[in-house]
Amino acid sequence: MGGVTTVDRVPKQDRSRATRQRLLEAAVACLAAHGWAGSTVSVVAERAGVSRGAAQHHFPTREDLFTAAVEYVAEERSTALRALFPEGPAQDRRAVVTALVDLYTGPLFRAALHLWVAASNEEQLRPRVTELEAHVGRETHRIAVDLLGADETTPGARETVQGLLDMARGLGLANLLTDDAGRRERVVAQWAKLLDEALG
Amino acid sequence: MGGVTTVDRVPKQDRSRATRQRLLEAAVACLAAHGWAGSTVSVVAERAGVSRGAAQHHFPTREDLFTAAVEYVAEERSTALRALFPEGPAQDRRAVVTALVDLYTGPLFRAALHLWVAASNEEQLRPRVTELEAHVGRETHRIAVDLLGADETTPGARETVQGLLDMARGLGLANLLTDDAGRRERVVAQWAKLLDEALG
Repeated sequence: MGGVTTVDRVPKQDRSRATRQRLLEAAVACLAAHGWAGSTVSVVAERAGVSRGAAQHHFPTREDLFTAAVEYVAEERSTALRALFPEGPAQDRRAVVTALVDLYTGPLFRAALHLWVAASNEEQLRPRVTELEAHVGRETHRIAVDLLGADETTPGARETVQGLLDMARGLGLANLLTDDAGRRERVVAQWAKLLDEALG
Repeated sequence: MGGVTTVDRVPKQDRSRATRQRLLEAAVACLAAHGWAGSTVSVVAERAGVSRGAAQHHFPTREDLFTAAVEYVAEERSTALRALFPEGPAQDRRAVVTALVDLYTGPLFRAALHLWVAASNEEQLRPRVTELEAHVGRETHRIAVDLLGADETTPGARETVQGLLDMARGLGLANLLTDDAGRRERVVAQWAKLLDEALG
């Protein structure tokens, strides 16, 4: 019995996983393009080519869908960031700073920002996004410390890295309405130098 | 004739200016508390204790009201910031960095952020907010350069100050959902040190 059931079950799980993934990706794209007010489970289901019922089976509430979506894409991006520097701590700190700042200039950041801002006014969303934000923030900090080869036992090193990530977020915000790539590159070049001196 | 008209006109102008000011302040408070979706001319007029007709006399469209409001409060804050350091370039750069970062943690930043994020998805709002943002950004940069006593002819000095303001914006974002004051103070202390060394 076991054999047949396993054979039957695997493709079904695969299909379910693929559906879930399509929903998550559609949710982030929808949030980035239309903001929180324009992002409902129905809109996302249609965009993903999934029935509304199937979408609600995976994500019972709107909050479930969108927080899971931002978390999923954030994890994907963390994995991609580590993969850029497979040797671990990079010799070229400017390349690491550039890659970290890039995390905050794409559709994921745009989506996360919409969720973040909506959460500041919606009590139902707020605790979920606060938790998500803390989790993603810790993970990004850990990657930054690793790739920059920062020694957090040195006084100030932890705050230097934190300030860099705050700067990256601010640069993401500055890129929201206009293409800020030229200015951003010059700021990154200068602060990568200062950071390099500070971290030794 | 001249005399009487002037006497009559002045209090009327004063009343009009006071009404305008009440509307602008109510608009920022409304935006900070309810976001763009919850901010209409009617809601603001009621909050300010002004008739809807009077509000529309001052600000024909919703876009007019809210961009004018953010600009007005930003100018007020710039003036207050300069007043904190009446002697000009401050000896204590950490105090300047703290004051600059404080610009991004109050209701004004919250209001501006809502307007900013809404503008990224609304074509009608986008050019207005882009222009406002550029104007306010230039003014803040000018104040920062003055108060930090930065010499922008030195290579990298301009980008050092810009990166600091990007960090301040990122710190504002980090403060949106939770009280981030403790962490922020440590980041500011460390980055003020790096900035001080960089600017010489």
